Amino acid sequence: MIELLGMLAYGELLAFDRMAADARLAPDLHRRAILSEMAAGEIANYRRLVGRLVELDADPEGAMQPYIEPLQAYHDRTVPRDWLEALTKAYVGDGVADDFFREMAAFLGEPDRSLVQQVLHDSRYNEFAAAEIKAAIEADPKVANRLSMWARRLVGEGLSQAQSVAVARPALAQLVANASGDQAGVQALLKRLAQTHGQRMATVGLNN
Amino acid sequence: MIELLGMLAYGELLAFDRMAADARLAPDLHRRAILSEMAAGEIANYRRLVGRLVELDADPEGAMQPYIEPLQAYHDRTVPRDWLEALTKAYVGDGVADDFFREMAAFLGEPDRSLVQQVLHDSRYNEFAAAEIKAAIEADPKVANRLSMWARRLVGEGLSQAQSVAVARPALAQLVANASGDQAGVQALLKRLAQTHGQRMATVGLNN
Repeated sequence: MIELLGMLAYGELLAFDRMAADARLAPDLHRRAILSEMAAGEIANYRRLVGRLVELDADPEGAMQPYIEPLQAYHDRTVPRDWLEALTKAYVGDGVADDFFREMAAFLGEPDRSLVQQVLHDSRYNEFAAAEIKAAIEADPKVANRLSMWARRLVGEGLSQAQSVAVARPALAQLVANASGDQAGVQALLKRLAQTHGQRMATVGLNN
Repeated sequence: MIELLGMLAYGELLAFDRMAADARLAPDLHRRAILSEMAAGEIANYRRLVGRLVELDADPEGAMQPYIEPLQAYHDRTVPRDWLEALTKAYVGDGVADDFFREMAAFLGEPDRSLVQQVLHDSRYNEFAAAEIKAAIEADPKVANRLSMWARRLVGEGLSQAQSVAVARPALAQLVANASGDQAGVQALLKRLAQTHGQRMATVGLNN
């Protein structure tokens, strides 16, 4: 569980960093402020997760260390070139990540279950990103193709990093397997994540 | 007063952006998280200032617009090259800015006086930056020269941008003059700011 909290904590710290940088791509001050606020929210969550790790007598930096390389690699390979790519990345990437952590949370005891559920992304921001993407596609339908390709690349890179984490961190892979029941359970989990992702794409007019 | 709140709001948004970027210069995860948290705090302040501008029936973007160019120019010309330069910039720049806004707050009516006082930087972070700079100078006294030169450049760039703001925004310059009494009062204000800045430099072992 410390593995899971460590991954989540470093994910928050990196998401902060990425969103803060992406905010510069915003077309106006209002949108820039919204993305900056989303970023700030990640730091509040980071703080809570680190607090829990300390409570568990774990070393927060040690718990995060194994996830630095794969998460950094994911972000380095998926640097958005414009505002819409940045929003799509937040919408798609955070969406899949949240679904995964929500599934895992169900198998945690308290207080960790509630903590993980609470640090999942605020749906307000999810709705903001969805509305922006939909509006852009309505204004110019060609945008859908470009962003759909981008979203597929995000998922591909994400899966590739997730695989290397599963190999490098057997304890975490075991936790996922236990939570899912068995290997078939893991397959079923992946299928559920893919389905929800597909629905999320369709909601904003993107093709899976 | 809308001028003052607009400048302060845009300053917070930009400070967020700069600190979030500087956090990457941190030598470890712990320090990186502290700077990220400092950045997130700026966004919370930004939100409060924008809320007040809306309450005053002002257009927040319009109120911030005049300060985009000079504040951006200041930051573009003072990009820290390493962690200590980043901290010195936060310590020196935020210190002078806070002193200025504290002086102005004294001449505002409520609730703006309290609002401005509350969005000034948290002294915890100020102490963190001061402790880091002091420790670095103790470990290697040569660092003091380099950071002192850097601090003088920060002040020089800051003064130069402040001057262009004073010329471009007569209403703001008038507010400062009124708050200070007269032209002699403005000179006295600048002298007080310089003195406090000098004390702050000396506290951490830097030469003014």
